[in-house]
Amino acid sequence: MAKEVTRRSDNYSQWYNDLALKADLAEQSAVRGCMVIKPYGYAIWEKMQSILDKMFKETGVRNAYFPLFIPKSFFSREAEHVAGFAKECAVVTHHRLMNSPDGNGVVVDPDAKLEEELIVRPTSETIIWSTYKNWIKSWRDLPILCNQWCNVVRWEMRTRLFLRTAEFLWQEGHTAHATALEAEAEANRMVRVYAEFAREIMALPVIMGHKSPNERFAGALDTLTIEAMMQDGKALQAGTSHFLGQNFAKSFDVKFANKDGKEEYVWATSWGVSTRLMGALIMAHGDDNGLVLPPKLAPIQIVMVPIYKTDEERTATLAGLEGIRKELEALGHSVEIDDRDTLRPGFKFAEWELKGVPVRLAMGARDLASGTVEVARRDTLTKETVSLDGIASYIHTLLDDIQKSIYDKALAFRESRIEKCDSWEEFKEKIQTGKFLLCHWDGTVETEQAIKDATKATIRCIPIDSCVCEEEGSDIFSGKPSHRRVVFAISY
Amino acid sequence: MAKEVTRRSDNYSQWYNDLALKADLAEQSAVRGCMVIKPYGYAIWEKMQSILDKMFKETGVRNAYFPLFIPKSFFSREAEHVAGFAKECAVVTHHRLMNSPDGNGVVVDPDAKLEEELIVRPTSETIIWSTYKNWIKSWRDLPILCNQWCNVVRWEMRTRLFLRTAEFLWQEGHTAHATALEAEAEANRMVRVYAEFAREIMALPVIMGHKSPNERFAGALDTLTIEAMMQDGKALQAGTSHFLGQNFAKSFDVKFANKDGKEEYVWATSWGVSTRLMGALIMAHGDDNGLVLPPKLAPIQIVMVPIYKTDEERTATLAGLEGIRKELEALGHSVEIDDRDTLRPGFKFAEWELKGVPVRLAMGARDLASGTVEVARRDTLTKETVSLDGIASYIHTLLDDIQKSIYDKALAFRESRIEKCDSWEEFKEKIQTGKFLLCHWDGTVETEQAIKDATKATIRCIPIDSCVCEEEGSDIFSGKPSHRRVVFAISY
Repeated sequence: MAKEVTRRSDNYSQWYNDLALKADLAEQSAVRGCMVIKPYGYAIWEKMQSILDKMFKETGVRNAYFPLFIPKSFFSREAEHVAGFAKECAVVTHHRLMNSPDGNGVVVDPDAKLEEELIVRPTSETIIWSTYKNWIKSWRDLPILCNQWCNVVRWEMRTRLFLRTAEFLWQEGHTAHATALEAEAEANRMVRVYAEFAREIMALPVIMGHKSPNERFAGALDTLTIEAMMQDGKALQAGTSHFLGQNFAKSFDVKFANKDGKEEYVWATSWGVSTRLMGALIMAHGDDNGLVLPPKLAPIQIVMVPIYKTDEERTATLAGLEGIRKELEALGHSVEIDDRDTLRPGFKFAEWELKGVPVRLAMGARDLASGTVEVARRDTLTKETVSLDGIASYIHTLLDDIQKSIYDKALAFRESRIEKCDSWEEFKEKIQTGKFLLCHWDGTVETEQAIKDATKATIRCIPIDSCVCEEEGSDIFSGKPSHRRVVFAISY
Repeated sequence: MAKEVTRRSDNYSQWYNDLALKADLAEQSAVRGCMVIKPYGYAIWEKMQSILDKMFKETGVRNAYFPLFIPKSFFSREAEHVAGFAKECAVVTHHRLMNSPDGNGVVVDPDAKLEEELIVRPTSETIIWSTYKNWIKSWRDLPILCNQWCNVVRWEMRTRLFLRTAEFLWQEGHTAHATALEAEAEANRMVRVYAEFAREIMALPVIMGHKSPNERFAGALDTLTIEAMMQDGKALQAGTSHFLGQNFAKSFDVKFANKDGKEEYVWATSWGVSTRLMGALIMAHGDDNGLVLPPKLAPIQIVMVPIYKTDEERTATLAGLEGIRKELEALGHSVEIDDRDTLRPGFKFAEWELKGVPVRLAMGARDLASGTVEVARRDTLTKETVSLDGIASYIHTLLDDIQKSIYDKALAFRESRIEKCDSWEEFKEKIQTGKFLLCHWDGTVETEQAIKDATKATIRCIPIDSCVCEEEGSDIFSGKPSHRRVVFAISY
């Protein structure tokens, strides 16, 4: 049997961890809070990167690279940003080790203390805006649309693979504009890129909206977010895009001469998604047998298992599968033939189910004789016997169907757990059962905080593009007037 | 005029710096020794990455990601490795900042001292082999062929853009094998991948060989290298591949059960190239007008400049160029039309020369009338008038010619500066003029060191695949017997 996975209904959190570990996505490292992303997990992240990178570039964004370290003094520049970020981080204080005087190993050389401590970037607004100061003189230098793919470090106390780790991988876009309007449009454009990526590639329905002031990024005037529902009904923030106003330009004195020759501060955005998306992928689609990967992100889209008793049967079934493999690869699909001779087919089936491979073909001597192959879908766990005539185009279409079904299933799940709620008593009860509740809110930080203190629920977003929420009413907690509903949920 | 570039003959080192800065490849950051890689420079690095990554994967290598931080104690495990690496590095000692008691900015929180200091990875053998210990139980788990693309930090005192920076980007492959033979074959395979990449993609001739024991990687039994000649006749080490024996397996206790059930230590290799390749690219091919980029790495392969006096001419020439652009893009080429209205054509020509774009097209009213376009080659700085009939396929072929010519020119340059040398007096003189000297060496560390002390020259490599070097003779310095010539040069 393949490795046992805890059932979701027994222990959801352990189920998540089992999937991440046993499907060979990642594991804890020897360094507290830092993970190792294993090849199978990294292959999924590479697919995410390559698709997102293309989407960014289509909007005119170009990649660059900025330093890992940020001088400590930079964190004192933008007051709100400090409050939000500068605290839990990795601080470099020395630049040399030396042999220990007692002859055992190495120690930090006390003579190699840095004049100014360096912070390992938790995010790069400060170092990037200190750089943009040299790049921007006139309106002709704008806009600047840069992105970087890199690692960042936030010293989290409680970590979980992918969802919250001290070091994680991400992309951070940082743009500079001549007008507020243009910067706001950019922030909006990028959150829509994230929403499209989630929907079309990750098969993940998301709600797009503004964060409440309480939940905004440190230093932002507006934070846009995409929020996804996991299978326990909790919300996961999957990507954010910030309109930063002129805050960073003012902190780092970045001005440009406009067309009239007058100096103005530059307008900014930043936006990012991280390896947290891997956590979303696991939790949104996985089942008690393991991962369920959408075909567009699956490193292996089709796995083929030969079923045989004799050497002759082995040779014949492998040859049959090899033919199908060639056709599928010609259509651009990634295929693996599992020809390991020491394992039983049932073991292999369970292993590839655990790893979430969308389609499995099994071929035995009888299939060969009848010109058929057994096709199993990972998402529905159903099997059927299919003729070898036109098998490649059949599977090509099937992969599209699977991509769509996975999305539809996740959407149906979310729809079954999202509802309007206008009673505080009901709210307190329902929010604990794992639901997104659409409620009226009076727009004050105080009310949001009181609701959070009472229930742990937060405003996940104030939806955009949602007519369901556009109505007058009264706040679910304070009873004060409200102009629209917002999404409350307990979150990761 | 475009930005002035220092002439090579006036100040080679300043010329290099001018190219890196003024062609918008990179610049120094606010953090000592760390550079910012600007979008144009990063686009070249992205091309290198994507081509190398494909070459690695074709040999069966898969990507993964290991932590940025390494516990200090890991550096004490492998004695030689410590000596070579553990000294100049960034040391993380604390994990929190706090508001300064005096109200000015932030300070390091003294209560947040780490129990064990963490080192920002200078290379990842130790953290990776501590991980492989959990991945490897039996011969069935081998080989492991992992690579990671990441940042590393080595606290260099004197830094130069791309060539030597405190933080740099690289890839590091780390493989684990059941036998010494297999590991040696892997180290050999990868140095050949590097040599092929240098030759075919970077248009850079390299000499492939073994490092002398003195110049080996810390902890390696054998280091293979590719060495390239720069235009000042100095050598640049462009990539290395190490056979690590069982050193790291022994340090981290990584054993496997062989087919007879007996436990053995695992055999290792590691291999890497870095953003240093960008420095090689600049220095190998650039001229006094700026960069000269091989077409296979040029972010823009063809730039088009309209020449016009009236609005009508502008519209007509732009339309003509647009037609050629479409054809070239259909052939897979990257094209930029420089339609900036505020700059003179001469200024644009100089700017694109500085940036090394391989082919420039200029089209004016007379060209339009006669059905021609002016085609300028960046590598030779020659121009010709070409008919628009079949222009796209003409340029397609021209780009191949340019790629080949750039290589041929670099090769001819190197051939003119490489020679056998058998006299110590001649050696001392010639090595200072920027040459690769093929000399007999007695194989001792003492002789190598004495030559280095006298001339700063080192053994760049003991060539493989070179029959020129295979002959008996006597050491150029000691006069002792020698069985083959090696390459001496002064290096970066």
